[in-house]
Amino acid sequence: MVHPTVPQPTLAPSAVFDWLDEAADLRARAGLTRTLRSRPADDPVLDLASNDYLGLVHHPAVTGAAAEAARRWGGGATGSRLVTGTTALHTELEDELAEFCGFEAALVFSTGYAANLAALTALTDPDTLIVSDAYNHASLIDGCRLARSDVHRAPHADPDAVREVLATRSHRRALVVTDSVFSVDGNAAPLAGHCAAARAHGAALLVDDAHGLGVLGDGGRGTLAVADLAGAPDTVATVTLSKSLGSQGGAVLGPRRVIRHLTETARTFIFDTGLAPAAAGTALGALRLLRAEPHRAARARELAHTLAARLTAAGLHASTPDAAVVSVRAPGPEAAVQWAADCRTAGLAVGCFRPPSVPDGISRLRLTARGDLTDAQITEAVRIIAATGPA
Amino acid sequence: MVHPTVPQPTLAPSAVFDWLDEAADLRARAGLTRTLRSRPADDPVLDLASNDYLGLVHHPAVTGAAAEAARRWGGGATGSRLVTGTTALHTELEDELAEFCGFEAALVFSTGYAANLAALTALTDPDTLIVSDAYNHASLIDGCRLARSDVHRAPHADPDAVREVLATRSHRRALVVTDSVFSVDGNAAPLAGHCAAARAHGAALLVDDAHGLGVLGDGGRGTLAVADLAGAPDTVATVTLSKSLGSQGGAVLGPRRVIRHLTETARTFIFDTGLAPAAAGTALGALRLLRAEPHRAARARELAHTLAARLTAAGLHASTPDAAVVSVRAPGPEAAVQWAADCRTAGLAVGCFRPPSVPDGISRLRLTARGDLTDAQITEAVRIIAATGPA
Repeated sequence: MVHPTVPQPTLAPSAVFDWLDEAADLRARAGLTRTLRSRPADDPVLDLASNDYLGLVHHPAVTGAAAEAARRWGGGATGSRLVTGTTALHTELEDELAEFCGFEAALVFSTGYAANLAALTALTDPDTLIVSDAYNHASLIDGCRLARSDVHRAPHADPDAVREVLATRSHRRALVVTDSVFSVDGNAAPLAGHCAAARAHGAALLVDDAHGLGVLGDGGRGTLAVADLAGAPDTVATVTLSKSLGSQGGAVLGPRRVIRHLTETARTFIFDTGLAPAAAGTALGALRLLRAEPHRAARARELAHTLAARLTAAGLHASTPDAAVVSVRAPGPEAAVQWAADCRTAGLAVGCFRPPSVPDGISRLRLTARGDLTDAQITEAVRIIAATGPA
Repeated sequence: MVHPTVPQPTLAPSAVFDWLDEAADLRARAGLTRTLRSRPADDPVLDLASNDYLGLVHHPAVTGAAAEAARRWGGGATGSRLVTGTTALHTELEDELAEFCGFEAALVFSTGYAANLAALTALTDPDTLIVSDAYNHASLIDGCRLARSDVHRAPHADPDAVREVLATRSHRRALVVTDSVFSVDGNAAPLAGHCAAARAHGAALLVDDAHGLGVLGDGGRGTLAVADLAGAPDTVATVTLSKSLGSQGGAVLGPRRVIRHLTETARTFIFDTGLAPAAAGTALGALRLLRAEPHRAARARELAHTLAARLTAAGLHASTPDAAVVSVRAPGPEAAVQWAADCRTAGLAVGCFRPPSVPDGISRLRLTARGDLTDAQITEAVRIIAATGPA
């Protein structure tokens, strides 16, 4: 911003952050106050709010792998992956993840957020046009903002619009970026269309498969496998280890040359401590469990369809799930908060998404069809949601 | 960038990432190739490369706390801290960390990087001038780039320069941001000077104490405690859980109103999965150990002085340590790589920092005086560094 230079009234130290209280008042008046709820270890509520899509987060094979990794490798990675932070466990996880998803190579980050910032900043330059779906996750949007590239925000799920902006661009390079499954409604991106548009105009494709890995594709191999894009020379995927794999962290999957480039240049890789061994062990334990029990992925998808159908039958406005997420529209942010609170009182935890977490401004309950739910639990969840819903 | 619209030659999918290989060639010619080294669990080398400043990463009380947390709370946090990702363990860690460091409140993030991005974006607005030390960590720089504020890059460790730019600003608000201890040389920022400059002009102060927590101050309470700024109404600190506390993650410490604001508005808090329970448990275990054995902090500082003095006595150009880091200058990036490799061959792991990881372009070996090193190990480290150094 450009301002005329004016003398600044000097604030007392105690007044420096007064403006934060004013911002809090504004949020409160708009019904957008957010508070943390600290859950106990033995929380009795039925959980349809988490992203533990396969219900693996408490599986003894998974938590046992976490404990074993901490004992063997220590509590932390001790440094940047490029200094002391790469253990043989990290390499094992990268190799198995790449092989499972069908890519040449993988690079593990301490969060999925960091993986997205890395991919967007390292795979672009000032002569790149980034074409980004309007409903992309915050981490992709922040990656676009950090990249030294022009960014075009394309209409949601519209390959024709992507094709047109690619065709008329003046930049040497282009990168089309989209979530594979959008977090709030659980709808899938038109990947085949995006890929065709990108290939027609020499662009690369970056797909965030956070909500696809473990749920979509044969045995949970992810959305890229479904679209026959896993291992393609012009396609890069990011995934999270914190949803289906019940851990923390993220990864970039792609051609070996892409992974080498990220290893050597991505700031959120170089200047961050490596993923904690326990988290790497957790993800590896969950991945191995998923390989041994591939039906878990299909079960999560089935349950999502059942959940959506029953919610619709109960007269609610439920989304059509392409993965394990189902949303239900609420009349407004305050009604959504009240609805979620009433569900909780009745013993059911559901997500409550309001602006600015919903790109279209429509408040919703968000439900995840955890793959380990029973039919009776689904019935009970639908009963509570319908009974507590706005008239 | 603005270009004339020109038709784009269409690349084959296999050629889309050819430019990454060209970039790799350029790095190789400049001696700046980086490769990952995967370490085994029983690595026999003497480690002076990690950031495990207190040598707690393998302490059984710490790894036991990690294992116990995974078993009790699960492999991951299962969702955003605002949805399902806040456990009673996270709250316990936040309360104890705030109390230990002397702040009203704390908010834990999944990485220190995310904590810095959060503080810089949420505590600024378009009418804020950010004044950022030229040698600040990459995560602070990226936070400045994500903030919707003007950013002034101030000369390194120069409070007078900070004061001048604050005095002549036209922005209503200002935020002075600095590392407390700079990562590469281990030198301390002039916090008292920065604070006086900020207070003279109604600015807030943000200090990244990643390398101070656990090492500086009474019992390792950190740099802000030393500077009598812990708990000040206009001061915010960020810390990492991945260095002295042997875990992963980061935290923001500050007035309660600041923590509330971050909880409700910081994108890297809202749109990220919460820190894994094992990592929260690790950090809490290390923090409790440090409270029970406060001499550990002073021991790390002492060892750093001993190490620097012996390196200087051996004719090397060692930095004067203000915390637990000592650097030794190398003639250039390739010489630094060779030197570090020769140390490793001789049984010593040291950090090797080259452009772009060094803000002044000077390549260095970077050594950490882990608090659990013996005098004999320090002697051996100095012997190896001197014997392998450039003539």
